[in-house]
Amino acid sequence: MPNIVFMLVDNLGWGDPGCYGGGSVRMAPTPRIDQLAADGLRLTNFNVESECTPTRAALLTGRYPIRSGNHLVRTVGEHGLAPWEVTLSQLLKGQGYATACFGKWHLGNTPERHPTALGFDEWFGIQDSTGPVFDHLNGKPDTIIRHTSVWEGVAGAPAERIADYDPDARRELDGQVVERASRYITDRAADGQPFFLYVPFTQVHHPNLPHPDFDGASGNGAFADCVMEMDHRAGQVIDAIDDAGLGDDTIIVWASDNGPPSHPTLGAQGSTGPFRGCLGSAYEGQLRVPCIIRWPGTIDTGRVSDEMVSVLDFYQTFASIAGAEVPTDRAVDSLDLGDFLAGGPSPRDGMLCFVGKTLAAVKWRQYKLHYVEYGIQPGHRYRLELQFPQLFNIAQDPREEWDLLAINLWVSEAMTPMIRDFMRSVHRFPNVPTGGDGPVEGTNLDVLAGRGS
Amino acid sequence: MPNIVFMLVDNLGWGDPGCYGGGSVRMAPTPRIDQLAADGLRLTNFNVESECTPTRAALLTGRYPIRSGNHLVRTVGEHGLAPWEVTLSQLLKGQGYATACFGKWHLGNTPERHPTALGFDEWFGIQDSTGPVFDHLNGKPDTIIRHTSVWEGVAGAPAERIADYDPDARRELDGQVVERASRYITDRAADGQPFFLYVPFTQVHHPNLPHPDFDGASGNGAFADCVMEMDHRAGQVIDAIDDAGLGDDTIIVWASDNGPPSHPTLGAQGSTGPFRGCLGSAYEGQLRVPCIIRWPGTIDTGRVSDEMVSVLDFYQTFASIAGAEVPTDRAVDSLDLGDFLAGGPSPRDGMLCFVGKTLAAVKWRQYKLHYVEYGIQPGHRYRLELQFPQLFNIAQDPREEWDLLAINLWVSEAMTPMIRDFMRSVHRFPNVPTGGDGPVEGTNLDVLAGRGS
Repeated sequence: MPNIVFMLVDNLGWGDPGCYGGGSVRMAPTPRIDQLAADGLRLTNFNVESECTPTRAALLTGRYPIRSGNHLVRTVGEHGLAPWEVTLSQLLKGQGYATACFGKWHLGNTPERHPTALGFDEWFGIQDSTGPVFDHLNGKPDTIIRHTSVWEGVAGAPAERIADYDPDARRELDGQVVERASRYITDRAADGQPFFLYVPFTQVHHPNLPHPDFDGASGNGAFADCVMEMDHRAGQVIDAIDDAGLGDDTIIVWASDNGPPSHPTLGAQGSTGPFRGCLGSAYEGQLRVPCIIRWPGTIDTGRVSDEMVSVLDFYQTFASIAGAEVPTDRAVDSLDLGDFLAGGPSPRDGMLCFVGKTLAAVKWRQYKLHYVEYGIQPGHRYRLELQFPQLFNIAQDPREEWDLLAINLWVSEAMTPMIRDFMRSVHRFPNVPTGGDGPVEGTNLDVLAGRGS
Repeated sequence: MPNIVFMLVDNLGWGDPGCYGGGSVRMAPTPRIDQLAADGLRLTNFNVESECTPTRAALLTGRYPIRSGNHLVRTVGEHGLAPWEVTLSQLLKGQGYATACFGKWHLGNTPERHPTALGFDEWFGIQDSTGPVFDHLNGKPDTIIRHTSVWEGVAGAPAERIADYDPDARRELDGQVVERASRYITDRAADGQPFFLYVPFTQVHHPNLPHPDFDGASGNGAFADCVMEMDHRAGQVIDAIDDAGLGDDTIIVWASDNGPPSHPTLGAQGSTGPFRGCLGSAYEGQLRVPCIIRWPGTIDTGRVSDEMVSVLDFYQTFASIAGAEVPTDRAVDSLDLGDFLAGGPSPRDGMLCFVGKTLAAVKWRQYKLHYVEYGIQPGHRYRLELQFPQLFNIAQDPREEWDLLAINLWVSEAMTPMIRDFMRSVHRFPNVPTGGDGPVEGTNLDVLAGRGS
C-alpha cells in the first residue's frame, strides 16, 4: 500500500504557482512546485468548496460539507467534524496506516473534534485559522487572543496548548510543521509502516508574515515572500520523502484549500489567474485552485489535465487504494479517481457549488449555472439573488462574464437532475444540524429542485 | 546573418496559449506554440501598443506610434506609415535580406503605403483588418464592402486586388498565407539568400470564422476553433523552416499584436490571463501579450523571462544583428535585445503607454502609474480622467485593483523623467501629423511633463 502525503496550502490562488502562470510573473518563483508538476499530474480543473473549513471537511469525509454541518467557517459555538463522521484518516488507520496531521485543522476546537480524536495518531498545529493573529497585531485583550494557540497531541489523550499563536509563532509555524513532517517520514521509513501524512500548511494565509529566512526574499512584499516560503516548505517535504527512499512508494498531493481572499484591508493577495471571483464566491477563482499529484509508476510525468476533479474525490480514491470500505449508512459524494490517475478520464462531470447553505451554482462539463451571485465591489462583498440564473461557458469565458442562458436553455435542464439527486439523498440521509442555523430545508434547494414554489 | 521569421497573431490574449495557462483549459490546445516555448524563450512581460495599427507601426519603425501618426486604427482618410518612415524591412533589405510580408498589413491602404512600397519584396494579404468581414455577414451594400479585399504585389509596381475579403475568403486566408510563407522559405533555402519573413496572421480576430478543416475542431465554439487553427498555422511555418534545414540559422518570433477585445456583440473572445483590461486599454491585459522567440545556439531552450520587453525593441535588435544602422534623424525608441537574448538582462525597465494620443500610463519595473482610465463596463467602454493618478504594483496585483500611490509617492517621481525625456525628443523631432487630429501638443503630455498648468 502506498504512503499518502497530502499537503494543503492555505488561500493560494490558481494563478500563483509558476506552472499555473504565476511564479516569476509575481516575483515569487516556485521552482519546487513547478518541478513537482513536471514529475506528475497538474490539474487545471481541480475544485474545492467555498472556503477553508468546508474544503477540509470535504477532503476528510468525502461529503458535501453541508451534510456534515461544515458549510461555513465558524469560530464560536460547537462546530467542526462531529464524532460520528468517518474520516479518511480513520479509514486508512483501519487498513494499518500510521496517520499524522501537522498544521492547521479548522474542523473543530473541542477535544472530541480534534484531529487526534478523528483518526490521526499525532497532531501538531493550530485548531482554527491564522486570521486571529491580527488580534495580536491590533492589540486585542489577552482574553480574546488566548484561544489561538499552537497545540500538540496524540490519540487517546486530550491535546495540549503548547504556545501562543502570536506573530512570531505564525512566522515559525510552517518551518516547525515541516520539521515534524520530515521526522515522521524518516521514522516511518525506518519502521516500514505505511502512512497517511496530512500537512495543512498555514501559509499563505493573511497576515502575511513569512519565516525570517524569507523576509524580503522576493523583493516584492510579504505576500510574495510567503509564496516563496510555501514553495520551499513543499520542497522540504518532497525531499524528506525522496531522501528516505520512499519516492516510488508514496502518493504526493499538493493543493490549495480555496481561492485567494479579497478585502480592502488586506490589499493584494493571491491571484485567481484567468478566473473571476475570490474566496467565498462560487466563481472559478474560488472553486478552481492548483493541485498537483505525483505517484511514480502510475501517473505519467508532465501530465496536465483539465478534467474535472473535486477535493471530495480523494476520500473514495484513497479508500479504494488502501482497500477500505467507505460508509454506506450516509451520503458520500466522493468518486474514485483510480482510473483517472492511471491515465483514464475523470469519473466526475459535475458538482454542486455551495456558498454556506446556499446552492450558489451548479457546474457541469464546461458550463456553470449561477442561481445566486456572490460578488465583490471595491469596499464590500454582496449576495445577489438572480432573477434569472446565469449560464457561463467557463472554457470560452473564464471570467464568467457572458451569460449564455437564453441561447443554451438545454444546459440548465441537464443540470437540474443533479440537484434533484442531491435532494433525494438529503431526504434519505438528513444533514447533520449544527451551528444553530437549521437543516437544509431552510435553503434554496427545495425551490431549485422543483419541489417548492 | 540569421534569417528572421516574425509571426504576429491578431488579438490573441496573454492567457490563450497552453504555455501561458490557456490551451486545454480553454478547450483549445496549442501544442505547437507550447513546443516553440519549450525550444526557446517565453516572455511573460512582453508589451505591445494599445491596438493593432500602433503595434505594427512600433514593430516596423521602432518608434512610439504617436511619432509616426499611427497611434490609432483608422479606416478612412490618409493613414498608415508615411513614405518617409524607415522600416525594419528596408533596413534588412539594405543588408542583403530578401523580404516578404504575407498576411494583414493595417499600416495604410494607398499604393505608397503598401508593404511593397515600404521595404517588402513581396506581399500577399489584406491591407486593413478583418472586422469589415462583418459587413458581408450583415448584408451591407457592395460599395461599402468592396474596399476589403485580398491583395498581392511585388516591389516596384502597384499591388493588385485579387479577391474579395468575404466570409469564405476569411476562412481560407491564413491557410493561403502559410502556403506562401512555406514556399518562400523553401525558395530561400534553395537560393541561399538570408530573409526577413513577416507573417501577420489574420486569426484569431473576429468574426470567428475558422478554416473549414478547423470548424468544430475544439468542440467549444468558433473562437476556440480559431485558436487551434492559429496554433496549427504557426506549426506549419515552423515545420517549413525546419524541413528546409534552416532551423539553426533562423530566428523565429511568434507574438500577438494586442490583448483580446471586449464588446457585448462579440461575446467571449481571448483571455487576458491574470491581467485586467482588454484591447484599447492601458491595463496589462492589453499591453502584455504572449511572445516566444526561438534562436538555437543563442537562446537557451525552455527559458522563461519576466523581464520587460517592448515590441519597439525588435527594430534595433534585428538591425544590430544584420549590421544595419538605425536612422539618427528622428527619434527611435527601440532598445537592443542582443545581450538579453543571449541570456543577459533586458535593457528596458520602463515604457510609455499611449491610448491613441493620450499618455494613459507609464510602466516602470513592476509598477504602473495610470493618468487616464480606459475601462469596460458591461455594454460600454469609457475614458475617465483620474483626479489623482493610480499606482499599481503589477507583480503583486496583476488585476491593477489596489492603488498604492499614497504610500509609494517615490515611484511616480521615478517615472516623471521618462515623460520629460519623451517630450524633449518630441520637441527636437516633431511627430508626424496625420489624420487631421493635430500634433502632440493637443494631448495631456505637456501637463504630465510638468510644462503646462
